[in-house]
Amino acid sequence: MKINENYQKLPGSYLFSTISKKVKAFQKEHPEKEIIRLGIGDVTLPIVPAVIKALHQAVDEMGNASTFHGYAPDLGYPFLRETIAREDYEKRGCDVKADEIFISDGAKSDCGNIQELFGPEARIAVCDPVYPVYVDSNVMAGRAGEYDPSSGIWSKVIYLPCTRENRFVPGLPKETPDMIYLCNPSNPTGTAMTGKQLKVWVDYANEHDAVILYDAAYEAYISDREVPHSIYEVEGAKTCAIEFRSFSKNAGFTGMRLGFTVVPKELSFGGASLHDMWARRHGTKYNGAPYIQQKAGMAVYSQEGRRELAEQVAYYMRNARTIAQGLEEAGYEVAGGVNSPYVWLHTGKLTSWEFFDRLLENAQVVGTPGSGFGPSGEHYFRLTGFGTYENTVKAIERIKTYG
Amino acid sequence: MKINENYQKLPGSYLFSTISKKVKAFQKEHPEKEIIRLGIGDVTLPIVPAVIKALHQAVDEMGNASTFHGYAPDLGYPFLRETIAREDYEKRGCDVKADEIFISDGAKSDCGNIQELFGPEARIAVCDPVYPVYVDSNVMAGRAGEYDPSSGIWSKVIYLPCTRENRFVPGLPKETPDMIYLCNPSNPTGTAMTGKQLKVWVDYANEHDAVILYDAAYEAYISDREVPHSIYEVEGAKTCAIEFRSFSKNAGFTGMRLGFTVVPKELSFGGASLHDMWARRHGTKYNGAPYIQQKAGMAVYSQEGRRELAEQVAYYMRNARTIAQGLEEAGYEVAGGVNSPYVWLHTGKLTSWEFFDRLLENAQVVGTPGSGFGPSGEHYFRLTGFGTYENTVKAIERIKTYG
Repeated sequence: MKINENYQKLPGSYLFSTISKKVKAFQKEHPEKEIIRLGIGDVTLPIVPAVIKALHQAVDEMGNASTFHGYAPDLGYPFLRETIAREDYEKRGCDVKADEIFISDGAKSDCGNIQELFGPEARIAVCDPVYPVYVDSNVMAGRAGEYDPSSGIWSKVIYLPCTRENRFVPGLPKETPDMIYLCNPSNPTGTAMTGKQLKVWVDYANEHDAVILYDAAYEAYISDREVPHSIYEVEGAKTCAIEFRSFSKNAGFTGMRLGFTVVPKELSFGGASLHDMWARRHGTKYNGAPYIQQKAGMAVYSQEGRRELAEQVAYYMRNARTIAQGLEEAGYEVAGGVNSPYVWLHTGKLTSWEFFDRLLENAQVVGTPGSGFGPSGEHYFRLTGFGTYENTVKAIERIKTYG
Repeated sequence: MKINENYQKLPGSYLFSTISKKVKAFQKEHPEKEIIRLGIGDVTLPIVPAVIKALHQAVDEMGNASTFHGYAPDLGYPFLRETIAREDYEKRGCDVKADEIFISDGAKSDCGNIQELFGPEARIAVCDPVYPVYVDSNVMAGRAGEYDPSSGIWSKVIYLPCTRENRFVPGLPKETPDMIYLCNPSNPTGTAMTGKQLKVWVDYANEHDAVILYDAAYEAYISDREVPHSIYEVEGAKTCAIEFRSFSKNAGFTGMRLGFTVVPKELSFGGASLHDMWARRHGTKYNGAPYIQQKAGMAVYSQEGRRELAEQVAYYMRNARTIAQGLEEAGYEVAGGVNSPYVWLHTGKLTSWEFFDRLLENAQVVGTPGSGFGPSGEHYFRLTGFGTYENTVKAIERIKTYG
């Protein structure tokens, strides 16, 4: 039997299980202490009323013979694709057509699956620190080379360090990649590249015949006018970039599963259209997003939905600002929290895990050690604005007092 | 740029688009004629009341802060995994544990993705005719070799012809495969292998260190006691078989997207556990099935849900019997329609497409040419029980009178 041996190369995924074990052990030793979790990337506010209403209506349609919907179109219902094209792209001056938008069950699946369109010898570049899915999905496909446990580095991956030294803006690499993953605003650093900074990458990709895999899952949190909401706001992007979008963070859909990916028709290499290839992949290995989820997605763009969701985003961003300001007042060096619900702090002389232990011990606050996101994440730490406001305020008070 | 060149090897997927074009052309020429479609594999009855009720409840939970659900566990909620283990396996005497069950967005995704666990040089065997996803997903991974358009054959695929000559039961191959796809009851032939016939394959796989990829999407339609509902009813299957199950056809979930896959813990090759590999794939490239869909799945196992769904299955099977009996009375040689909603008829001297044209022309009934499912599907034709009873009766009357 011939197994895919690349899976065996993956080191254990210990980050969140180690956090969980440490928290449990602490709680057992100190049952009287209340722990606040600000490490999570999951939302906590419920789905807004406009979307709930749309879901109930869609469910009723599914229970009625005359309005029942069987298999959805593989690539998504035209009603949603057209709405996205108009609201997310046309209104921002981007030339993205409805038939370039592929509805899916979320950005994680799409980010993980997109690498299938490329050959096994294609080279990937990733920011460091980075969302682990980009790297792991390429390890599984045999594109990452060998892992060095001591450095945490894959031999064939091109790393783009994002640290305070370069203000978390990745510099162009020495080796030439074929696939460049960019998450903007960034998970985990919470920082964002401006249109001007992105233009450098778009030009580079076009010149070097590379593709940019642009993860815009956090675009709803952008407040800075210089930061584009879509890579297609940058001139030249349509010939080099694929964009991933999500309903998870802007509409609280983490447990609902809905997202979409834009693959422009212009995007082709050696005569092969990535658009056609992605359409074929959808048709072969996917069966469309559920009707009720796509109707829920429509409600996100309604007047009522927009208003309710703007409040939700504002709530999380108030948390993020509270964290960032509080940490700065406590003397920490902080990034993020302006265009993203993520706050990225420097842990000084402590390692990420030492800082984790100290924060848990002294303030009973749980965050995520930066080293879990890549070698350059060492000496950093992630806190998120996705908790409740009350807990966020309490956590920051504790950090200021005891942290 | 290094593209995955295997995608370019895929011939166009013309079956359903050609059908659609022919139907449109006929309708344009004969606007007064009413066309009946019995070619579809999609369900037509609405979701049953017990499931609709569960969906409304789950939607309300998502709209309330205290009952909201964010990211689902990657592998599925324990409530659903445990229910499936008990109802689908323990009650049939199969030793399948909850943590061997992976909840997903449907059998199509799982059938398409499972091949990732195997090496590029693994050889696949498929029944012929066959559900195209098995072959196409392996073509994309470079495992199928080269395509010969004149014969419709891939050079590295091992074909297992299923024709009237062997009563649609595949015989053991001469070449030894690593991965053996079996769909039972079969799409498209509608026939089913008994436990005894399956045992031959289980023994073969265990002896030859091969894995059986067992698609049981149509198990709810089984009426014959000799046909197992799960491959794990067959002794020895736990060391050689992965099973795919779906809520699409037993509960009308084609537009809802929910399924599951069983990967036994016993299943390992050269020290690599397929169970652990599939768990890792889920964790890396998937983000869990939506909470509301998993609650809907729970309602499928409720007393009310079971009763309502038994009626639904009976409705479709009455259609299938009506088709099978009617065709036999009209002198056709017919298979299927007993353990499956699919009826597979022999077209005699006519090719599959000639028969398609004649049926459309004479009876205005649309079915699916068997040659679209593989070379051995030539001279066969698929009709399905998924239409309305009224249309099914009318279609058969027309075939008997004019077809």
